[in-house]
Amino acid sequence: MSDDRRHLLLIGIGAGDPQQLTLQAIDALNRTDVFFMLDKGQDKDELLHFREAICRRHIAPDHDYRIVTLPNPPRPQVPYGAPKDDAYRAIVAEWHHQRSAMLADAIQDTLLPGQTGAFLVWGDPSLYDSTIRLIDRLSASATLNLGTDVIPGITSVQMLCALHRIPLNQIGESVLITTGRKLQQLINEDEYQLPATTVVMLDGNSVFQHIQRDDLMLYWGANLGTEHQALISGPLQEVTQRALGKREEIKAKAGWVMDVFIIIKKQCY
Amino acid sequence: MSDDRRHLLLIGIGAGDPQQLTLQAIDALNRTDVFFMLDKGQDKDELLHFREAICRRHIAPDHDYRIVTLPNPPRPQVPYGAPKDDAYRAIVAEWHHQRSAMLADAIQDTLLPGQTGAFLVWGDPSLYDSTIRLIDRLSASATLNLGTDVIPGITSVQMLCALHRIPLNQIGESVLITTGRKLQQLINEDEYQLPATTVVMLDGNSVFQHIQRDDLMLYWGANLGTEHQALISGPLQEVTQRALGKREEIKAKAGWVMDVFIIIKKQCY
Repeated sequence: MSDDRRHLLLIGIGAGDPQQLTLQAIDALNRTDVFFMLDKGQDKDELLHFREAICRRHIAPDHDYRIVTLPNPPRPQVPYGAPKDDAYRAIVAEWHHQRSAMLADAIQDTLLPGQTGAFLVWGDPSLYDSTIRLIDRLSASATLNLGTDVIPGITSVQMLCALHRIPLNQIGESVLITTGRKLQQLINEDEYQLPATTVVMLDGNSVFQHIQRDDLMLYWGANLGTEHQALISGPLQEVTQRALGKREEIKAKAGWVMDVFIIIKKQCY
Repeated sequence: MSDDRRHLLLIGIGAGDPQQLTLQAIDALNRTDVFFMLDKGQDKDELLHFREAICRRHIAPDHDYRIVTLPNPPRPQVPYGAPKDDAYRAIVAEWHHQRSAMLADAIQDTLLPGQTGAFLVWGDPSLYDSTIRLIDRLSASATLNLGTDVIPGITSVQMLCALHRIPLNQIGESVLITTGRKLQQLINEDEYQLPATTVVMLDGNSVFQHIQRDDLMLYWGANLGTEHQALISGPLQEVTQRALGKREEIKAKAGWVMDVFIIIKKQCY
């Protein structure tokens, strides 16, 4: 790589437990000149503070770095339950474009050619995170000569399995990772099939409460790795109300709630 | 926890790059009195050596530990392509039973009450690995009073995405993680649907070569993190032969080949 390239590192920092950082991630932190952090508003302040704490804790005292905090244009809301997939994609694409333009300016203003910038990505940069696409868009621009590396991190799904001490897949079976929106579309169909294991992320509406089947186990968790962490598991119909109640309780106490759940067919488990 | 319990740690050690160890995993290594390693035969010797190297490298010099290597009863083979799911599960269950009985003996012989044993699991213990089920079976036995903790690790899927610098999911779309066997069953159907992203693990037969569609991208990798690591990506029909050739080449050079691949629908990407 030539010296006048700017480098960007997308560093997965795990799902809330600072001990989940990999050695590779720590090494990357210590090669970074400028950390770019997107400020997602007050609900997510805790996440921003967590990133800053990681820098303080894991970067050698003699390594100089800057933190550049960028405002994050709010993600436009799509009416929930609307299966407008093209419209949804267009809206998200426009949101990406705004973020990309802002970041390009920030990189040119703060990162010198030859220097290394980094994003600390919650979980793993490859799973339900838009940073890789954001950087792809930047890299395609002619004005910035960028080299990029991605460093994997432990996801909330892996943490949830570890905390419940369950295998994600059933023996020889598939695993579907999906969103609350997609799960809702699926269970709206007359006769829907679920794979042996279904993982649901990005579900602000606790779609599991709308599933009327008695052959499923629920493994649920919220605010993993934080002081408000909660775990609930059991036959789906039996534990749904308890999970919904706990979700509200955490939201009230912590100011935000982020949950993830796994549905497993009983005959498989 | 009472002092007379034996503890078992299932430690995910990542997918081949020793820098992928998490701080949590390193802490766990340094709390372990006995490491149990399953000897899977000469093809997998390299994996066994990698585990031993991890212990040498990351355990503090003043920490005493033993390594107990156990023979691993060979996994019975099921004829490839046979969709005998119940028979397959029964055979695998019997294999688990044999391994469980052997391990129970080893734990009673080598691990004192109050001590901690560990398994170093390739990738993440929750994904296509049988160790959690093995320990569940042991824990259910009345004679051993076991406490278990699972520590997540970076999987080969995450490493593959990071090396190709791609997001695993498409925007708002699902991801199916499946096996070569399941993918073959799927593409044997007349009109099969693939989700936006399909991840295939445990495929000794390169099932991607039997897919006749021109709307798919292949992201393939083999022996990740080792000196024989190879990556190939491109339109599936264009790169299939190259990936097959590379697979044979690695097998000849390294003595073993372990590959993983991701198929992504072009219109989504």
